[in-house]
Amino acid sequence: MSDTAMPSLKTRFIPADPARVTFTGGFWDSWTRTVREVTIPTQHQRLEEEGFLEVLDFGKPPGPLARPIQPSGLSMQHFFDSDFGKWIEAASYTLKTHPNPEIEAKIDAIVEKLEQGQMADGYLNSWFIRREPDKRWTNLRDLHEMYSMGHLLEGAVAYFQATGKRRFLDVMIRAVDHIIDTFGPEPGKLRGYDAHEEIELALVKLYRVTRDPRHLALATFFIDERGQMPSYYDEEARRRGENPADYVYQTYAYSQAHRPVREQTQVVGHAVRAMYLLSAMVDLAHENDDPTLKAACDRLFANLVERQLYVTGGLGPSASNEGFTREFDLPNETAYAETCAAVALGFFAHRMAQLDLDSRYTDRLETVLYNGALSGISRDGEHYFYENVLESHGQNRRWKWHYCPCCPTNIARMITSLGQYVYSAAGDALAVHLYAAGTGELELDGRLVRLTQETRYPWEGDVAIRLTLENPAELTLHLRIPGWCRQARLTVNGEAVDLATVTEKGYAAIRRLWANGDEIRLGFDMPVDRLYAHPAVSEDAGRVALSRGPVVYCVEEVDLGTEPQRLRLPADAPIQAQFEPDLLGGATVLTGEALEAQAADWAGLYRTAPPALKPRRFKAVPYHLWANREAGAMLVWLNEK
Amino acid sequence: MSDTAMPSLKTRFIPADPARVTFTGGFWDSWTRTVREVTIPTQHQRLEEEGFLEVLDFGKPPGPLARPIQPSGLSMQHFFDSDFGKWIEAASYTLKTHPNPEIEAKIDAIVEKLEQGQMADGYLNSWFIRREPDKRWTNLRDLHEMYSMGHLLEGAVAYFQATGKRRFLDVMIRAVDHIIDTFGPEPGKLRGYDAHEEIELALVKLYRVTRDPRHLALATFFIDERGQMPSYYDEEARRRGENPADYVYQTYAYSQAHRPVREQTQVVGHAVRAMYLLSAMVDLAHENDDPTLKAACDRLFANLVERQLYVTGGLGPSASNEGFTREFDLPNETAYAETCAAVALGFFAHRMAQLDLDSRYTDRLETVLYNGALSGISRDGEHYFYENVLESHGQNRRWKWHYCPCCPTNIARMITSLGQYVYSAAGDALAVHLYAAGTGELELDGRLVRLTQETRYPWEGDVAIRLTLENPAELTLHLRIPGWCRQARLTVNGEAVDLATVTEKGYAAIRRLWANGDEIRLGFDMPVDRLYAHPAVSEDAGRVALSRGPVVYCVEEVDLGTEPQRLRLPADAPIQAQFEPDLLGGATVLTGEALEAQAADWAGLYRTAPPALKPRRFKAVPYHLWANREAGAMLVWLNEK
Repeated sequence: MSDTAMPSLKTRFIPADPARVTFTGGFWDSWTRTVREVTIPTQHQRLEEEGFLEVLDFGKPPGPLARPIQPSGLSMQHFFDSDFGKWIEAASYTLKTHPNPEIEAKIDAIVEKLEQGQMADGYLNSWFIRREPDKRWTNLRDLHEMYSMGHLLEGAVAYFQATGKRRFLDVMIRAVDHIIDTFGPEPGKLRGYDAHEEIELALVKLYRVTRDPRHLALATFFIDERGQMPSYYDEEARRRGENPADYVYQTYAYSQAHRPVREQTQVVGHAVRAMYLLSAMVDLAHENDDPTLKAACDRLFANLVERQLYVTGGLGPSASNEGFTREFDLPNETAYAETCAAVALGFFAHRMAQLDLDSRYTDRLETVLYNGALSGISRDGEHYFYENVLESHGQNRRWKWHYCPCCPTNIARMITSLGQYVYSAAGDALAVHLYAAGTGELELDGRLVRLTQETRYPWEGDVAIRLTLENPAELTLHLRIPGWCRQARLTVNGEAVDLATVTEKGYAAIRRLWANGDEIRLGFDMPVDRLYAHPAVSEDAGRVALSRGPVVYCVEEVDLGTEPQRLRLPADAPIQAQFEPDLLGGATVLTGEALEAQAADWAGLYRTAPPALKPRRFKAVPYHLWANREAGAMLVWLNEK
Repeated sequence: MSDTAMPSLKTRFIPADPARVTFTGGFWDSWTRTVREVTIPTQHQRLEEEGFLEVLDFGKPPGPLARPIQPSGLSMQHFFDSDFGKWIEAASYTLKTHPNPEIEAKIDAIVEKLEQGQMADGYLNSWFIRREPDKRWTNLRDLHEMYSMGHLLEGAVAYFQATGKRRFLDVMIRAVDHIIDTFGPEPGKLRGYDAHEEIELALVKLYRVTRDPRHLALATFFIDERGQMPSYYDEEARRRGENPADYVYQTYAYSQAHRPVREQTQVVGHAVRAMYLLSAMVDLAHENDDPTLKAACDRLFANLVERQLYVTGGLGPSASNEGFTREFDLPNETAYAETCAAVALGFFAHRMAQLDLDSRYTDRLETVLYNGALSGISRDGEHYFYENVLESHGQNRRWKWHYCPCCPTNIARMITSLGQYVYSAAGDALAVHLYAAGTGELELDGRLVRLTQETRYPWEGDVAIRLTLENPAELTLHLRIPGWCRQARLTVNGEAVDLATVTEKGYAAIRRLWANGDEIRLGFDMPVDRLYAHPAVSEDAGRVALSRGPVVYCVEEVDLGTEPQRLRLPADAPIQAQFEPDLLGGATVLTGEALEAQAADWAGLYRTAPPALKPRRFKAVPYHLWANREAGAMLVWLNEK
């Protein structure tokens, strides 16, 4: 074991530069290509067509709002800037490997407008500058002011890293300077923090570029201040002449601001906010070597995965607060499970794994990548889901655009930066978190190491990894053994390695003198699994979900010919897996024989005899591919017989 | 068979005068007493305490609204008048049998205020008179103007019938005269109708008192006009300077006004509205001898009971429109199933049965009486449910008052007028629809007939009915054989009657020369039934509901000691019924042995092995009694193993 396997909080694995990870001929090659070639350009087109970009016409008077302002005082337009930020970020990740002057020009045009609109003191938010300049910083509780700036900041960092152009970054550093002038613990400054977390993690990204301690200090201030009582939001409401008790969402738990973050024991409130907060907390645990933050992250991660997470990696069951309700409340048909929340869980889990190499984090990253986040984008790359239900009677259809289009750019930036999730490095150690055909290049103590993966993962469980390095070097390779896998094999240059001996916390650590051409082979048995939910999840009682490897399956009416809710799957029914090359670009499907509850002999709604059952073959498809064909019902949790 | 068993539309059974039906020592004795002694006085107290009665202070300027106006433009206060109307109606039904000068004085005080406030032209609605007199009759789509008047009218009719006092009735006749002056097919009149049905059935009640053909004609006009295109609501919105497309509920199906009532094939929209509409349609089918209306009622009743009705008799699953969604959509935990809707289904079903003696109607009346309507009131008679869910995790608690208190007075008026549902008469025929210990008096062709029932129904299935009449008379007695009963027995003076021969559409017809002291004995086998739902009701797949006789059962956490969602009921588990005298006034409970899914050995949310099961005894209690004890989870549809 290398001691980097259990890094101190000041040591972390550094994710690969996504521009140095390429995908070849496999699952992610296909998806990254779709997002790069279809999603990125069409998202800009939508921003244009739908009038979003007009909010950056700072010289002109603002137009009417497309939608009424919500009871909270928030309009969607308050945070259009965040969509530009996320789109720029998503696009930036593609530019080094696939230069695209047209896209770059579109980004530059946005940056130019932002620069022109920026106020003399650095303030930058298109809503307040154009509509209510005197109301800036008067309502952090409801209006997403710093949330929007945070996404612009993430975009600016990504664009700078992709192109080396500083203009956008400098605009955003000035905006951050303005925030530093306005907020902080010093006398005369406001002790506020945005109710929608985002700026905190963006500031850490900025700090990692600038190394300006003020950037880190601001993020730290926001996190430390969050949830302190008396609440800033109470004071702020009173300053606006409002009664804090009239707060639409009733509790600051909606924004994880009901108590200090280190004292929180249950993941609560708006799910995306919660995940962005936790992502920032991991970042700060590392940067500030703060075990109290790490402990809170551990506790809240455990609470999430043990009590509040859908089998798909979706989270936040309720539409009313876009978030969490009670523990174990995981309704299927009304699941909100916002795409953004699953994406953000990926951010959080990924950060945890870099600080504490443990597959229980990466397992959940993998879950959202193949299921609850990926389901947010259509196979054609230009239709989306906001809610990711686990059951439908056919009413849920993907849309081309949404009045609140936060999800499309979020899943896009996750996929265009996917390389960073596959590999990471710390000193002379290298971790392989995900298996995907392609190559990755990393620097390990100054040595360039290239890994080339050959695999049909996630459809097959065999992975061959070849190393390319100039000179032999003693390195530790950490190879993730996925949590879903009950039988794994590992060979190095043909020699079997005893996984039980070398595996800790779900990563097999192989330290040796590695040489050019060395080959690792991993074999993960990938049977069809029947998954059962904890008895406290009453919605899944008597039900079973099918998965294979990291992929969760569902049954769609388009395949079954009737509503999958009619199926009863015998507990011992054999289920076969086979690859269907013509299904939406190719996917492994599951087939088997189940029973179908018969309706023909029913006269009314209720009777004393149970429905008659007749055999019915079924096919299950990967959940992330659902709703890409004919409209119809869908079910993840099948009724078991 | 008497030919009155299949009455023409101009023949109907006339419900008993509720004041001539008394309950003695049984189920309904207890409930009618509670409502009379507790519910009626405390409801007036709530109306007073909560400031409802202040809206009748016509001389004073109106006070501030307790709640913001809804996006539709409606405030709760728009229809406070309806609560007075329903409370007066509920109280009136008790006054003949239980004179109560205090209650009568409170009613007279309300009537006096209404009379003082009534405008010179007869218009009567406290909201518009006090707040927006120039806006009266400008928005029938949203503001419940005639709905409120309709309930006052029902109250006035009931009060007149109870006391003979005409003052309230005369006030309301003047109000109706004003409506007749304003609305109708004649040139110069508005062709409008209220989006919340109610006035229509109230006008028929009035007509049955006044025999004034204008009262019937107005109700007929409203029904005939409903849903005609172009829509009155479109015109009306344009007159207000609004775009009809901005209608909050998007479709006039919300108010059953999307197409003419005779063309409707599916019960849609707001559930209470739908049931009030259908009740009026039955009334008018009879009064106008209109088979086209009866055909629509038949079609819509069948649609409701075959595709859209909870096993409890609850209806309207969705909170968003307080009504119907797609067919077979019957979610349990999010069931809206408003108390008022179940009460109103009772009104509709009862009316159908009087026109067409068929137990399929009375069966549903009985279902709501013992389940989905009665669940709306607590055993102590002063706490209520608005939503009647079929599953809870403990969050649903009964309230003492509600900002929209339509349900408490609705269930109260149903119970205080219960006698009318038990018996009815047509010519020389008498129908016994419900079994309840007590006596009823009816006039049959001028002869007084008294029936005395001795029974422990619904806890036991034996009923003895003794006749009291001065002289022997040839009469037909129609005795309902409940649809839930698979084995029934009937004797007359000890002699067995072959039910198969005499029963049609769920009523056994016995025509003979009946004499004083004749005794009928009915025996209804009452085993515990396991009910299964139609396979299209996906929420109930793999689940079973327990019922016995007309009573649907549920399991409560307070009895089980854990969430009933953890239970798995083996398909062959024997279940015992026994009467528990100390349970909330006495009730038959069900007990048996089931299995409990174990949580102790779970490490996370999902695993590949199903939960371990351990035996667990359970007790089920009548659904209508739930949430009268310690807070906790509840379940009607148990998971079957």
